[in-house]
Amino acid sequence: MSYSGYWGKSLEFLKKNSLEVGSQVKVRTDAEYSGIIMPRYEHSDDQHIALKLKNGYNIGLEIGKISRIDAEPSHGAKKESTAQPHPDPSLPKILLISTGGTIASRIDYRTGGVTPALTAAELNASVPELSKIANIDTEVLFSEYSENLMPEHWIKIAERLDSCARTEYKGIIVAHGTDTMQYTAAALSFALSGYPKPVALVGSQRSSDRPSSDAALNLISAARFLTDTDAAGIFVVMHNSTSDDEVACHWGTRVRKNHTSKRNAFQTVGGAPAYIVKNGTIEKNPQFDHPRKSYNPRINFDKKALLLKYYPGLDPSLIDHAVSSGYQAIIFEGTGLGHVGRILYDSIQRAKKKGLFLGMTSQCIDGMVRMTVYDSGRDLLNLGVVPLDNMVPEAALVKSMWALSNSKDEKEMERMMRDNVALEISD
Amino acid sequence: MSYSGYWGKSLEFLKKNSLEVGSQVKVRTDAEYSGIIMPRYEHSDDQHIALKLKNGYNIGLEIGKISRIDAEPSHGAKKESTAQPHPDPSLPKILLISTGGTIASRIDYRTGGVTPALTAAELNASVPELSKIANIDTEVLFSEYSENLMPEHWIKIAERLDSCARTEYKGIIVAHGTDTMQYTAAALSFALSGYPKPVALVGSQRSSDRPSSDAALNLISAARFLTDTDAAGIFVVMHNSTSDDEVACHWGTRVRKNHTSKRNAFQTVGGAPAYIVKNGTIEKNPQFDHPRKSYNPRINFDKKALLLKYYPGLDPSLIDHAVSSGYQAIIFEGTGLGHVGRILYDSIQRAKKKGLFLGMTSQCIDGMVRMTVYDSGRDLLNLGVVPLDNMVPEAALVKSMWALSNSKDEKEMERMMRDNVALEISD
Repeated sequence: MSYSGYWGKSLEFLKKNSLEVGSQVKVRTDAEYSGIIMPRYEHSDDQHIALKLKNGYNIGLEIGKISRIDAEPSHGAKKESTAQPHPDPSLPKILLISTGGTIASRIDYRTGGVTPALTAAELNASVPELSKIANIDTEVLFSEYSENLMPEHWIKIAERLDSCARTEYKGIIVAHGTDTMQYTAAALSFALSGYPKPVALVGSQRSSDRPSSDAALNLISAARFLTDTDAAGIFVVMHNSTSDDEVACHWGTRVRKNHTSKRNAFQTVGGAPAYIVKNGTIEKNPQFDHPRKSYNPRINFDKKALLLKYYPGLDPSLIDHAVSSGYQAIIFEGTGLGHVGRILYDSIQRAKKKGLFLGMTSQCIDGMVRMTVYDSGRDLLNLGVVPLDNMVPEAALVKSMWALSNSKDEKEMERMMRDNVALEISD
Repeated sequence: MSYSGYWGKSLEFLKKNSLEVGSQVKVRTDAEYSGIIMPRYEHSDDQHIALKLKNGYNIGLEIGKISRIDAEPSHGAKKESTAQPHPDPSLPKILLISTGGTIASRIDYRTGGVTPALTAAELNASVPELSKIANIDTEVLFSEYSENLMPEHWIKIAERLDSCARTEYKGIIVAHGTDTMQYTAAALSFALSGYPKPVALVGSQRSSDRPSSDAALNLISAARFLTDTDAAGIFVVMHNSTSDDEVACHWGTRVRKNHTSKRNAFQTVGGAPAYIVKNGTIEKNPQFDHPRKSYNPRINFDKKALLLKYYPGLDPSLIDHAVSSGYQAIIFEGTGLGHVGRILYDSIQRAKKKGLFLGMTSQCIDGMVRMTVYDSGRDLLNLGVVPLDNMVPEAALVKSMWALSNSKDEKEMERMMRDNVALEISD
């Protein structure tokens, strides 16, 4: 029996009614609710039980107000067909790689929690429309929520994509958690600069078995985008509105998750998405111009890069700590046009002397860093801090990890960071 | 003679033409330009001179393409009247406190750079419309770009405001740099919770002597807002559009600078501004409801709080370093709904055991932290990480500095952080 997080009165209540975490129940209080008893976290009180409703939302019910509670037959894990649809030789081929995340998740009917449980084949089979767009091969690369993905995972995804660069696939879908999707998108953009096929990172903000899930439309739109355009490179393909009708394809180095829960959480920073998929048609942003480069895979990252957001009261000794800990690069999220308080200058000077790359982005996120306008900016330029134009801070950090492991000295590192490798600098 | 940043060919060029940094010149290349020779930064090449044009923009001119360059009579520092307009006893009184920043800056005609040079009296005199709205007393508290302001400065501003709480002023304008304005606004909101008068932090994105400056409209709108509404508390009053016609009054704990250079860089996160000033009328956002609290000044901050943004590859030992350096609080900018990779769990556990306050915000910036949806969130709740709802990360950091110095133990600290002290949590 599992009572995770229940104690005191609420534990007693569950035991008395022969219930446990994961039990499917019908509860009567002021209204009647059906759902699954969820685990509670340790610091919760002992006056409530938590219930996951069928619509996916969790509610807390006060024990004292429950007039009746009955166990119901459990749904058990839904058995889904994993059979591949019959391939249609007239359709293009797509590879669907699953790495985990909400899109590959469903509610675990034992614990009531959401866990990454769907294989890529199940995901494919759960969206029958896909088989009308392309013949889809599926594989599971790993199964992790994206907050647990590390640069080592970026390398695995990049290596798998690299192995597909010259195959018959028209494009590749990477199912991925949304939490760090923008970091992976940037990492793949740099590691696979000039990649000859389109890659769509696709996630969902609501798990695939919820009625409000955005998974199906995101997948269908990604498949359309891969098969019906001549795009190449790394994109993030996610809802573009709160309703279920429009999907945006964001360029991989300019995209950011700007809302914790909305389905249209992802936005292109400082511009419109590269493509919009709506009602079966695909519209290209006339401003989006991706000059084709020759494919130049350089798949490695060095984690000795620190992202440091400046704020009033920040202790300059953090920089000295980074230097003595062997960091090779610091990406500042400065204020405004790219400033930090002069209290950091001495530590910055010491870091520069030790050969660290010091790059400046802005915590404003949108807009150009301009370090020649004010004394503060010019001071930092004189200290050797390199302005990174309008790179999104997270993309600049990922780029520094990539450039560190692909440059032989400070000069080359700086040149690579200033170079517009994968449209990370926009106009 | 000053040649700051010039060397080699460009230095030779200046000397040959008897020019220096700060010289007013007319230059002929492909076109004709008038402007002031600007300093260059050390790493610049020696092929260009930098010129600040009359419209405030800087351009670089290649020496090889200059067919003619002539010194022009210098404007010298413009002499402005600092005389106070004659007070009108029928108008309300406002106090204008200057702390520095672009709004109190003008181009230094010696160096061509922008420096904080205007006194509050000069600022007032430079916008004659103000005297028709209120009788304005002026004073200079300090004169700093806001990237150099520290929690010690927040305390000075808060103490000065506290001393005005029961005076005849209808409201107070604080002229402030835009770089860290949102931090100061949050700091004053917590330190002066329930402040009985309206305070408008006003800045500008373009210096006051540039034709495109936003300073005048922001000041005039702030004065109207202070005199014509019954608002109380701390607001940021800045342009609401790229044109020069609409100004927004943002609530001090929900505002963020979201663009490096646009005049409408400031936005209310997750909602509309509290008030809009347009064409002399003021519109209140019907959603904005500030329940009046009794005034409870607690003016102190403890800098032992760390803002830590999670990213793939972040070294968990940074947390251990914070613990051993004596930090008392860590505010995480987690991913998505409020997650970090499990790689941090051990370090988080050690920090919690040492009694640090650990709070969770989201690097998405907009939207609620919800840590009961996924295993990752529940794990962190079990480790004692406190969800900070939809506090803007920077406001949460400032709040933790404030709560640290106003709580006697861990429990009270957590209670204060969860409490909605100054509308930092919105619906």
